[in-house]
Amino acid sequence: MILALDAMGGDHAPQAVVDGALQALQELEQDMVIWLFGDEVQIRTCLQGKEYPEGRLLIKPATEVITCEEAPAAAVRRKKNSSVVLAAKAVADGEADCFISAGSTGAVLSCGTLIIRRIKGVQRPALAPLIPNLQGGHTMIIDAGANVDCKPLYLVQFAQMGSAYMELVEGVEAPVIGLLNNGEEAEKGNELTKETYPLLQKLEGIRFGGNCEARELMSGDFDAVVTDGFAGNVLLKSTEGVAKAITSMLKTELMGSLRGTIGGAIAKPAFASLKKKMDYTEVGGAPLLGVNGGVIKAHGSSNAKAFFNAIRQAQKLVKGGVTKKIAAAVQASEIQVEG
Amino acid sequence: MILALDAMGGDHAPQAVVDGALQALQELEQDMVIWLFGDEVQIRTCLQGKEYPEGRLLIKPATEVITCEEAPAAAVRRKKNSSVVLAAKAVADGEADCFISAGSTGAVLSCGTLIIRRIKGVQRPALAPLIPNLQGGHTMIIDAGANVDCKPLYLVQFAQMGSAYMELVEGVEAPVIGLLNNGEEAEKGNELTKETYPLLQKLEGIRFGGNCEARELMSGDFDAVVTDGFAGNVLLKSTEGVAKAITSMLKTELMGSLRGTIGGAIAKPAFASLKKKMDYTEVGGAPLLGVNGGVIKAHGSSNAKAFFNAIRQAQKLVKGGVTKKIAAAVQASEIQVEG
Repeated sequence: MILALDAMGGDHAPQAVVDGALQALQELEQDMVIWLFGDEVQIRTCLQGKEYPEGRLLIKPATEVITCEEAPAAAVRRKKNSSVVLAAKAVADGEADCFISAGSTGAVLSCGTLIIRRIKGVQRPALAPLIPNLQGGHTMIIDAGANVDCKPLYLVQFAQMGSAYMELVEGVEAPVIGLLNNGEEAEKGNELTKETYPLLQKLEGIRFGGNCEARELMSGDFDAVVTDGFAGNVLLKSTEGVAKAITSMLKTELMGSLRGTIGGAIAKPAFASLKKKMDYTEVGGAPLLGVNGGVIKAHGSSNAKAFFNAIRQAQKLVKGGVTKKIAAAVQASEIQVEG
Repeated sequence: MILALDAMGGDHAPQAVVDGALQALQELEQDMVIWLFGDEVQIRTCLQGKEYPEGRLLIKPATEVITCEEAPAAAVRRKKNSSVVLAAKAVADGEADCFISAGSTGAVLSCGTLIIRRIKGVQRPALAPLIPNLQGGHTMIIDAGANVDCKPLYLVQFAQMGSAYMELVEGVEAPVIGLLNNGEEAEKGNELTKETYPLLQKLEGIRFGGNCEARELMSGDFDAVVTDGFAGNVLLKSTEGVAKAITSMLKTELMGSLRGTIGGAIAKPAFASLKKKMDYTEVGGAPLLGVNGGVIKAHGSSNAKAFFNAIRQAQKLVKGGVTKKIAAAVQASEIQVEG
């Protein structure tokens, strides 16, 4: 298995990428080779003094970098020697199995659609982050922003893709798929969800759990929630924002009094444990599903641990055969949808 | 000023409605009369043994109740003697200034559009809940579910309505209005927000602060955030859901160890203070803006304090002249939009 890492993407690149890769080579299964795409001098500096299996960590020089400020599609077309484009190309050419980048989300999406390309029959690839839930597992939001305007068929395929991932990577048997909606009742919704609901009801091969209201996302009652990328982006970012706001408000309250400060200090391990459970770096990254190969978009502020976890996630994605499963599911149901 | 209360709406009706009304008559300004619509016997039972100014609290018998299980529009048309319909009718007929209900959201919306009716020129009335923010104030989400499919002009009017409310009720000078979007940059968005952005930019009479990502809702940088009712509903409910999930996770962590339990007990006042800040009962309810009179939808689980605060909010809404201000703003810009 070969994993292609964009060593130049993210706030702490290339050091965090390199450190995550080294930890993965040491701790994860040994049948994996890592290719680091990026500035050779910088990567070598990061590797200085470190011991690692040289045959399993290769530097693939890339002379350009795509920043978050650039228009993504144009940059991907123009910067043929950028780290993210070359890493994606390795997957497109069948040399690598999965690529990981913490760089510009738009650039990663463009690499997915323009370079690796859609699986035959897939209407739209989808970005699918995972949120920690109250049952100790994760709930997937699919799509979280790759497709802001959607048609019912896209959402049907998101259900198939999310189901495949949750089963093969997270090990959930018969994952429960929800339709993000503004009410639980079947007749609720906007034009899109009203049209999508009956399609999901009759879709074979997935377990449709009905409408999921946004307040149920973290309950763990659903393994994946399908939605258009606009509402999915709102859901993802509001989850992040509220978690951050409440943490910040609680800190202010605790620090505002002697009792609070003392109580907070004593209860510190409990806060640390909660923080760990809510920590995005534990999850890895958000897979881009529906393209011909593995793509994982790691958080822009990923540290070494986040990259380590993204690599572990990539291993599972490749071993599980998620891409093949999605292709088979989508092609089987094309017959249903057309007929 | 006359306020019409649906005494039968909500999980704790009629007792909580009656208690909230009694508190309001005692503590708020004296120029207000409250009409309680509902079952006379039940309301009298709730009033037993309590002292109150009899001339300022009148029972208006209503023999029917609309439940949350009924199809709202049909129920509003059929149950002419229901508490919520009669309370709305009092506003429609100009007898009362504002009506408040914690009953079925759908029924309250239907009462707004079918009985009280839209302000001339308003395309769609909008439900506009208020969320506590990090700066100690509130941020309005408009619309949070009344209109799941929207056109750009609706959102433009939501901006005018939200601005009027935040200025006249919350006392914010030149409220900052944001457009809920999947990125900060002006060119981001789905079809709806891309078309809406330039309209808001050139709209006179409001202070447009650009795109607001969902994660910024609680920052306090925006006073009101305009959105279609589907995404707004996702934003509202995910805010509620995440706050609840984190509280529950934190409780579990604290109770799971002796240190956590002790620390949590010591820091209790800090937790209580945070809870109060996040407490929806402090806000009152969500106004329905854009109809010919005051309408406030209180939370279904409202207690006496929530009703008290909804009554205070209704007072401000009426005194501030929000309806008139919205009418003037919408009519002035009709010329802009048409021309």
